[in-house]
Amino acid sequence: MVTTDLLIIGAGPTGLFTVFEAGLLKIKCHIIDALPQAGGQLQELYPKKPIFDIPGYPTINAGELVDNLMEQIKQFQPGFTLAETAETLTKIDDDWFEVVTNKGTVHRARAVAIAGGLGTFSPRKPEHLENLAKFEENGVEYFVKEPEHFRNKKVVIAGGGDSALDWSIFLSNVASEVTLIHRRNEFRGALDSVEKVQALKDAGKLKLITPAEVTSLHGDTHLESITVDAGGEIREIETDFFIPLFGLTPKLGDLANWGLEIEKNAIKVNNALDYQTNIEGVYAIGDINTYPGKLKLILCGFHEATLMCQSVYNRMNPGKKFVLKYTTVSGVDGFDGSRKEAEKAVVKKID
Amino acid sequence: MVTTDLLIIGAGPTGLFTVFEAGLLKIKCHIIDALPQAGGQLQELYPKKPIFDIPGYPTINAGELVDNLMEQIKQFQPGFTLAETAETLTKIDDDWFEVVTNKGTVHRARAVAIAGGLGTFSPRKPEHLENLAKFEENGVEYFVKEPEHFRNKKVVIAGGGDSALDWSIFLSNVASEVTLIHRRNEFRGALDSVEKVQALKDAGKLKLITPAEVTSLHGDTHLESITVDAGGEIREIETDFFIPLFGLTPKLGDLANWGLEIEKNAIKVNNALDYQTNIEGVYAIGDINTYPGKLKLILCGFHEATLMCQSVYNRMNPGKKFVLKYTTVSGVDGFDGSRKEAEKAVVKKID
Repeated sequence: MVTTDLLIIGAGPTGLFTVFEAGLLKIKCHIIDALPQAGGQLQELYPKKPIFDIPGYPTINAGELVDNLMEQIKQFQPGFTLAETAETLTKIDDDWFEVVTNKGTVHRARAVAIAGGLGTFSPRKPEHLENLAKFEENGVEYFVKEPEHFRNKKVVIAGGGDSALDWSIFLSNVASEVTLIHRRNEFRGALDSVEKVQALKDAGKLKLITPAEVTSLHGDTHLESITVDAGGEIREIETDFFIPLFGLTPKLGDLANWGLEIEKNAIKVNNALDYQTNIEGVYAIGDINTYPGKLKLILCGFHEATLMCQSVYNRMNPGKKFVLKYTTVSGVDGFDGSRKEAEKAVVKKID
Repeated sequence: MVTTDLLIIGAGPTGLFTVFEAGLLKIKCHIIDALPQAGGQLQELYPKKPIFDIPGYPTINAGELVDNLMEQIKQFQPGFTLAETAETLTKIDDDWFEVVTNKGTVHRARAVAIAGGLGTFSPRKPEHLENLAKFEENGVEYFVKEPEHFRNKKVVIAGGGDSALDWSIFLSNVASEVTLIHRRNEFRGALDSVEKVQALKDAGKLKLITPAEVTSLHGDTHLESITVDAGGEIREIETDFFIPLFGLTPKLGDLANWGLEIEKNAIKVNNALDYQTNIEGVYAIGDINTYPGKLKLILCGFHEATLMCQSVYNRMNPGKKFVLKYTTVSGVDGFDGSRKEAEKAVVKKID
């Protein structure tokens, strides 16, 4: 069982920055995310794309912003439960909440911050594959969580976008054989990635089958081969893994059943004070919340996270008065014993 | 007369970032500030000190943050009225406000954003100098607005902090003679600055008189000399300028008489919607406003500025529906004809 002060659901930029503001108030955090890595849609959907409206950054790539946020919060040692989705929320007593994931991991916390962005990113699954469910986690994977898992294995990747291109490139150095299948001849992605796949194919390091579709999966308990329809030509290909990368769709998912007030697919919060939901001790920040005038911008999530942390502090320390300290003046004390501070002025005689 | 869409009072980080968010909505901005340069207290009080709580910056020097914000907004070509304070605010008609500065500069705008930080920074003046007012702008200066003004002139600087040290260093290369006077032998500042002043003094490029105080000013219409009491020893020193740098105190100042609802030295705003004050079309954002749960943090000013700009847009474009566009998706079009955008994905066949 994971026990923490503030449980954050969602490891996007808002969820990550929450750890920093909570840390300044000595509040410990743990983050749950459905994706296998931190960063939310910035890391999963557009890590190489520039964002122009982060204050103080005329331009910054989404992936770089995530890296910087991870660096900013590391001193507060957040815990992570990755590649799991929060399934149930239960109020245990006046002080504690319990959140259990789809994999059965139990988390207990004094307060819960839902920073779920557009919702849980669920993979778009291939259609018309009869026994797909049987092979899920037995050869069919929707994410590459751990590349080493595919070391010296045969892998078939399907898809025509950046994820399919980039993982084909990456795994061509890890797997014993990589086959990329796409229903069109044209790929849509960064020029660089398309050119790399072309070069790998020309060098014989990657097999390409287009236009083509996977029509059936075979195997006893684990996947052993797939059938491919390549413009009428039917082929059977031996493989250990099939990784369809057809994109992700965000869904509110299980959150919708937690008794939260929902409006237009978002969670209603009290924006006049602390971004608390209708359940006391449960907050919603960033793109997943709604209130009059709400804008789904990263910089708004940062502000909401910050004001929320004050409320969590008051909840955890009733009656104790909070005194705002500026980081420039007071420095930052990490939970790992680190200290960051401005150079002090010297008082010195000039002779 | 300066005419603009949105008049921003205060060129601190919140005021500066407002230009960016307004620019995305095609709203033109002009900024008034009492200081001779943009950046507010970050630039004036602690340009070399690190800030640790700007989201996405594990650490950034205050001056660097200001530089980055200036770079981020330059495509939206803001106007500046610097080294002047906004003295009066008048509602001309339903559409226009007029703001006049202490120097008589008239500004007209469709909306006014007060981003005044802790207030107007006013210099702490030396006490017990009888005819101080007579020499103000006639040899007595409280800021170094334009260093060239002092080229080949005799300058006396008073003070014991970073400003006094840094301007003594800088002007020792510009003025014909620099004398630094401080009432103590000890200076309080960056080690680097203290050491540089020591070196300049040792090299005879700067005169130092400590412990000492300026006790009277002399001259016909312009300052010609000062009297210094150096521990009982009375000396008269010929000089063209006397620059006392005793620090700045922020004051709400004239704003307090504009009919705005004030609470605890801050302007009350509607935080549940758009950070508007009790005067429709006049907003207050950043450290100068107050509402339940308010935190005086730069990142909060960024959010407040952003939501406010939507309200200004609605005010200027009644009935027109605003559609939020993400900068990563739509790019940023500057008023100077520039365009910033993410590299487009290519659609390309792999043979």
